Amino acid sequence: MGKSLEERIAAQALSYVVDPPTGLDPVINLASPAELEGLFDQTVGFGFGDDEGAHDDDSIVAAVDLVIKHSVHTSHPRFINQNFAGPDSVSVVGDWLGAALNTTGATFEAAPVFTLMESAVLSKLGRIAGYVDADAEQIPILPPGLFCPGGSTATLYALQLARHRMRPDIRRTGATGEQMTLFVSDSGHYAASKSAALLGIGTDSVIKVDSDERGAIVPDALRAAITGSAEAGQGPFAIIATSGTTVTSAFDDLNALAGIAEEFGLWLHVDGCYGGSALFSAKHRHLLDGVERSDSFVWNLHKMMGMTQQCTALLVREPELLAPCFALNADYLFQPDKLNAEFDSGDRTFQCARRIDVLKLWLAWKHHGDAGFAARIDHAVEMAEHARRRIEASNGEFAPVVGNFTNVVFGWIPPNRRPLSLSPAHIAGLAPEIHAELHALAPKIKAQMQANGTAMVGFQPIEGLNTFRLLFMNPDVTATDVDAMLDLVADYGAEALT
Amino acid sequence: MGKSLEERIAAQALSYVVDPPTGLDPVINLASPAELEGLFDQTVGFGFGDDEGAHDDDSIVAAVDLVIKHSVHTSHPRFINQNFAGPDSVSVVGDWLGAALNTTGATFEAAPVFTLMESAVLSKLGRIAGYVDADAEQIPILPPGLFCPGGSTATLYALQLARHRMRPDIRRTGATGEQMTLFVSDSGHYAASKSAALLGIGTDSVIKVDSDERGAIVPDALRAAITGSAEAGQGPFAIIATSGTTVTSAFDDLNALAGIAEEFGLWLHVDGCYGGSALFSAKHRHLLDGVERSDSFVWNLHKMMGMTQQCTALLVREPELLAPCFALNADYLFQPDKLNAEFDSGDRTFQCARRIDVLKLWLAWKHHGDAGFAARIDHAVEMAEHARRRIEASNGEFAPVVGNFTNVVFGWIPPNRRPLSLSPAHIAGLAPEIHAELHALAPKIKAQMQANGTAMVGFQPIEGLNTFRLLFMNPDVTATDVDAMLDLVADYGAEALT
Repeated sequence: MGKSLEERIAAQALSYVVDPPTGLDPVINLASPAELEGLFDQTVGFGFGDDEGAHDDDSIVAAVDLVIKHSVHTSHPRFINQNFAGPDSVSVVGDWLGAALNTTGATFEAAPVFTLMESAVLSKLGRIAGYVDADAEQIPILPPGLFCPGGSTATLYALQLARHRMRPDIRRTGATGEQMTLFVSDSGHYAASKSAALLGIGTDSVIKVDSDERGAIVPDALRAAITGSAEAGQGPFAIIATSGTTVTSAFDDLNALAGIAEEFGLWLHVDGCYGGSALFSAKHRHLLDGVERSDSFVWNLHKMMGMTQQCTALLVREPELLAPCFALNADYLFQPDKLNAEFDSGDRTFQCARRIDVLKLWLAWKHHGDAGFAARIDHAVEMAEHARRRIEASNGEFAPVVGNFTNVVFGWIPPNRRPLSLSPAHIAGLAPEIHAELHALAPKIKAQMQANGTAMVGFQPIEGLNTFRLLFMNPDVTATDVDAMLDLVADYGAEALT
Repeated sequence: MGKSLEERIAAQALSYVVDPPTGLDPVINLASPAELEGLFDQTVGFGFGDDEGAHDDDSIVAAVDLVIKHSVHTSHPRFINQNFAGPDSVSVVGDWLGAALNTTGATFEAAPVFTLMESAVLSKLGRIAGYVDADAEQIPILPPGLFCPGGSTATLYALQLARHRMRPDIRRTGATGEQMTLFVSDSGHYAASKSAALLGIGTDSVIKVDSDERGAIVPDALRAAITGSAEAGQGPFAIIATSGTTVTSAFDDLNALAGIAEEFGLWLHVDGCYGGSALFSAKHRHLLDGVERSDSFVWNLHKMMGMTQQCTALLVREPELLAPCFALNADYLFQPDKLNAEFDSGDRTFQCARRIDVLKLWLAWKHHGDAGFAARIDHAVEMAEHARRRIEASNGEFAPVVGNFTNVVFGWIPPNRRPLSLSPAHIAGLAPEIHAELHALAPKIKAQMQANGTAMVGFQPIEGLNTFRLLFMNPDVTATDVDAMLDLVADYGAEALT
């Protein structure tokens, strides 16, 4: 008997997981939107007609081949383009198992195993972060947090908790017009402003505090900003600390910020979406010293740890706050007269149906153990250190800009401009024609990488100048890959000049 | 060579998809939290110790067997417990492929194929709903909506759009203290209140309008409520219509509501999370007549259509509103100088990284075609009609309560109480001892179903009385299954009386 379509697609997906593109395989087979449309037109077409028929299995299997071929290969060691890379293959198949069992995380009744798994994982994460005691229950009925669909959403929930603790009336009455201010470094993630807009707090109430040259918030500037805001009659209510900023992976001083939060009675939320995973490593966990003094902490396991999209834990120091903030006691779902209803988690969050994001993490963790998780972090930092050494030793071919932990921001310098410093302070002083020349180079270099499929490396403006960012988390990346990516930047840079 | 852990888990998952529990297989192997903990202790344990080691492959494979055995089998024809059931198996493996390719939907650069797929699917959904013309582009650069992580989140975004259209200043300043009211039927989903709390609008500003006995909003009551709110100096800004209420699957009269929205200048959001899929069926799409006059429309393809969790489309009639409402132009991600940046979707929504939820829908749709999607809806309604006929013909054994479309709400009547009407109007008049007896029966019947694993059927209070809800969407459900589930309710009811 022939294989069913399901079996054929599953085999295509499994083959990709077991034998992914690597080495000299392309990271991307670049095609324009029009070219992609043309390619798919030879199978089932991208679009849907007014009376779309059912396509045969062979055509769909051919379309799946095109989907795979023309997608970006995020597991490739030379995909260094985002703050995720190198999906953990046990996590991938753990995700598959969750999809096969297709249920939602709101009630114990519909998700008995996964409810306990969430509790177990949140308890362990809570112990690692110092949110609960080292001897806390391994599977508590009320775990110290919840799973969310991504880091921005977790920050949104955390800010709602912060507002609710200070002004529980607003949940019922709505915002009453007094300004409530929150503080985040000018290197922090834009989720703060997006959340403030959505919460009816307003983007004007997000006060961006100076960060230092590395990208970490200046505590004295934070204290001054809070004092000024309070004196202006605004209502400071929350601080967002960042553990691993998006571009440079800077870590705010959490003990200093916790002290300020305690001094002013503010909620301290830690955006550890990227850098939170440093806690897994004995060598690097000091970067988050003081996190145990925060009120909430968001940790994206789909970033450094390679869980598939998405796997976000929001830890909450006082999980008793969750139900008063979010619950609406829908009587068709959260019936107290059901079996084991005390385990139901759905009324402690905003979402109703939730995809099971915990299973893949639970399986990968049981497979790798604590030591395996630590090794992933340590390897990532070693690769960044290798890149930093190589840049330092490049005799001016590459100029370091800034960078911490796993992140390395740098520029390539045309031969006739060497030596040239690209420290953030020096960028401001560049001659306009040099600034313009360098600024235009990065998109050209990147476009050439994409066209050749040899690598994908992100760039972004620092002080208005496009610079490259290497950031590491994929355990398959080797020093050879790092060297090769730097060489590619230099080669395409030289090409772009001719 | 032995198989890798990844291959073994993938095989376990595939075997579940290809040969799922059915017929007399249990829907659930019920175990208490303590029993589950004990079972897992024999493999890798649920919890994590302070120094969790790496477990061997055989133990993890054994744990996966336990995960499968003790999860709820939502594909089983006798799982009728939630507003999702019967995952489409092509959708399941499409989800797998997306997890294997693990990328995010924010930029064309990182998701070229999926960006075009989102456009293609949103265009098709938009044509079906009448949001765009029948001859609109099949793959527009700006599609008429976006994908969201669930229906509650989509409603949250829609209300933010509604507020933004009326008061664009609030995004920047925050809510200024004037009350803004929104209107939804008292049978509508609690996402309205959850969203109002989060948006800083306040739950008091959610005005619950009377619904009729079937569960549909009374348009005259809505008009009166809006008029009263405006006269009280509040600011009406939005109406939420419901197409398929959670309990009875009632459909509001969208043309009547669109007329009222136009009359008062309000945003009309349609919560079609459950019932939106009726649009796929020529026979049932009249239930949503007028949807083309609404401003936004949320449609959960993971409910009736069996896509895996989650697959939510939010259609927006004026997609040009999305960027002004949500964009923050993060310069590390949405660089205008990148290739094909005009296709980037990430700044038109709240989330940054988004799981690829479109691929599974695209593949399933190409496989089933429009006719296959229609057949799923038509079959579901046929099963509900069979259940209604069986209840009507039961000589008082079962009492119909209410129900529309795919939903059938009913009670089982003990022999000595027959005949007894359970129409909502009659429930209020029940003698207290009869009310108490019936109310206590439903949880006992359900607990017995779970204990025996024979079925899972939801119950919820109607006018304070626990009643059962059958609702259909799984294409594998047969009339035999429907009969068997009613028989089980009766059998366990009789048992509970002894």
